[in-house]
Amino acid sequence: MSEKLKFAVIGGGSWATAIAKMLCVNLSEIAWYMRNEAAIEHIEKYKHNPNYLSSVEFDTNKLKLTNNINEAIEYADYIIFAIPSAFLDAELQNMTVSLADKIIFSAIKGIVPETSLIVGEHFHIQYDIPYYNIGVITGPCHAEEVALERLSYLTIACGDPEKASIVAKSLSGNYIKAKISDDIIGTEYAAMLKNIYAIAAGIAHGLGYGDNFQSVMMSNGIREMKKFIRKVHKMKRNINDSAYLGDLLVTGYSVFSRNRMFGNMIGKGYTVKSAMMEMSMVAEGYYATKSAYKLNQGYGAKTPIIDAVYAVLYEGKDAKTVFKRLTESLD
Amino acid sequence: MSEKLKFAVIGGGSWATAIAKMLCVNLSEIAWYMRNEAAIEHIEKYKHNPNYLSSVEFDTNKLKLTNNINEAIEYADYIIFAIPSAFLDAELQNMTVSLADKIIFSAIKGIVPETSLIVGEHFHIQYDIPYYNIGVITGPCHAEEVALERLSYLTIACGDPEKASIVAKSLSGNYIKAKISDDIIGTEYAAMLKNIYAIAAGIAHGLGYGDNFQSVMMSNGIREMKKFIRKVHKMKRNINDSAYLGDLLVTGYSVFSRNRMFGNMIGKGYTVKSAMMEMSMVAEGYYATKSAYKLNQGYGAKTPIIDAVYAVLYEGKDAKTVFKRLTESLD
Repeated sequence: MSEKLKFAVIGGGSWATAIAKMLCVNLSEIAWYMRNEAAIEHIEKYKHNPNYLSSVEFDTNKLKLTNNINEAIEYADYIIFAIPSAFLDAELQNMTVSLADKIIFSAIKGIVPETSLIVGEHFHIQYDIPYYNIGVITGPCHAEEVALERLSYLTIACGDPEKASIVAKSLSGNYIKAKISDDIIGTEYAAMLKNIYAIAAGIAHGLGYGDNFQSVMMSNGIREMKKFIRKVHKMKRNINDSAYLGDLLVTGYSVFSRNRMFGNMIGKGYTVKSAMMEMSMVAEGYYATKSAYKLNQGYGAKTPIIDAVYAVLYEGKDAKTVFKRLTESLD
Repeated sequence: MSEKLKFAVIGGGSWATAIAKMLCVNLSEIAWYMRNEAAIEHIEKYKHNPNYLSSVEFDTNKLKLTNNINEAIEYADYIIFAIPSAFLDAELQNMTVSLADKIIFSAIKGIVPETSLIVGEHFHIQYDIPYYNIGVITGPCHAEEVALERLSYLTIACGDPEKASIVAKSLSGNYIKAKISDDIIGTEYAAMLKNIYAIAAGIAHGLGYGDNFQSVMMSNGIREMKKFIRKVHKMKRNINDSAYLGDLLVTGYSVFSRNRMFGNMIGKGYTVKSAMMEMSMVAEGYYATKSAYKLNQGYGAKTPIIDAVYAVLYEGKDAKTVFKRLTESLD
């Protein structure tokens, strides 16, 4: 691994913490930006992030921790963004340094609400970053299992395969296998769409549908995802690869997924507002649903699951009625 | 529904009981064969199968219960076999009446150990049943959820679409949606292969691999299944349809699956023999593994998961070592 290459991680949550852990296996130094000053002090003093994956011990000699996003960006050649998509735009507003010539990798699974763009497109359109300097880090990967050092597979997508390889090598280790892909659009859309299907799975569970139906939902979900992504960006891809199907499954079958939990509350009769308040955080899939639905007005892919989730979350339709109708469209 | 058509269910287990329940919604009479005479007496007296899905209440006026397989076969036009594949050959040995002109549907998910054939092939080759009189009933469908009347989707495959439709209509109801397919070979192989992947998922779980890896295993499993089935019978099919991917998921993610449970014990260090004794029943996937492995010696599909399970179950190889090597083949 070339020591000349400098990495920064942007974000203090569980996925950012997992990525920092993976990078520290291979690199002698990384910059790590998080807003929360108390968390930085805690990590410097106790070697653990107090709020996320707190069992992970860091070699603090390797960490250049900062709560100034400009410091982290200026330091690094490769910048990995791992903050909720809802906060990305606000964070970038604080940026005074230039992103020109920086290589941006998104580990964010969602849509930037302000622009309704996936993260790669947001950087490309809003910040003029060329696509060969934009990449995506995608799972299937629960951060919690990285903390436990359980074997996980990542897909690193970038238009420039050399950059994808560099990031893949920087993250790989005993318990991380990272492969590369050139499908930056498809992998990022998959990572965003899967959250909608996880909400759908949650709603169905909340309404009392069982495991038989869950498997039908996932089987229809991956077919729907394939059609949608094909409309957005047609290229040769195997939708059953881990970055697409695997990522859908690890989220759709996870009882810990925030998106599934959010859906489950909706299915059980919470309003959207009360489910959000209960979770004290917005599930990524909530924004993704609106964006995907609106986008698809132009594409016209057949997406009965996305349409059903949209009707429930944004049109105030009764979940039971909408899902009863949805079951007629599935097979 | 034409009242002229007579159905028989062969088997007294949970899946047979679920099928009998579904048929009784649409038919005024069915024959139902099971070996266990005490169970028959119990059903006649108390309207419930004492051993499987005992919450299901039957209208006994509709049931012609018998422990003589010949009576059931002679009675029916459509005969649905739903007994473990390991017992099929022995049951058929008791048969003295002819199967000529009978329409045989298999609801068995496995290989007939004596002939190493899937059930449809077994009837075709051993009993000269033409393929247009052979069909398959496949899930994704846990029998337990049929008992609870939870929405489930079936796929009914037959070379003759009219016969597939008749069976589909006879099983459909408020909580059962049945679609038809012409892929009798592919759906039956899928139903058999999924049990091998469920064993693999169980072994991985027993060895301590987590949810991230499980999703990678399923993503690789469906790609492997596609390659295998393509070698056996090449035709246009969408491997992500519920009968293939859905069936794989409902089994691979089920903690109640006997196959997954069996694999889990192997992963935890039980020998094959002790795991079988512990379960007091052989998991279908155990036979399927041997047959699929042997068959594939001729086909030459790339099947690292099947190969790994075979090495552990039949070659006495150490599960930990074999799966460590398997992880290198997955992506």
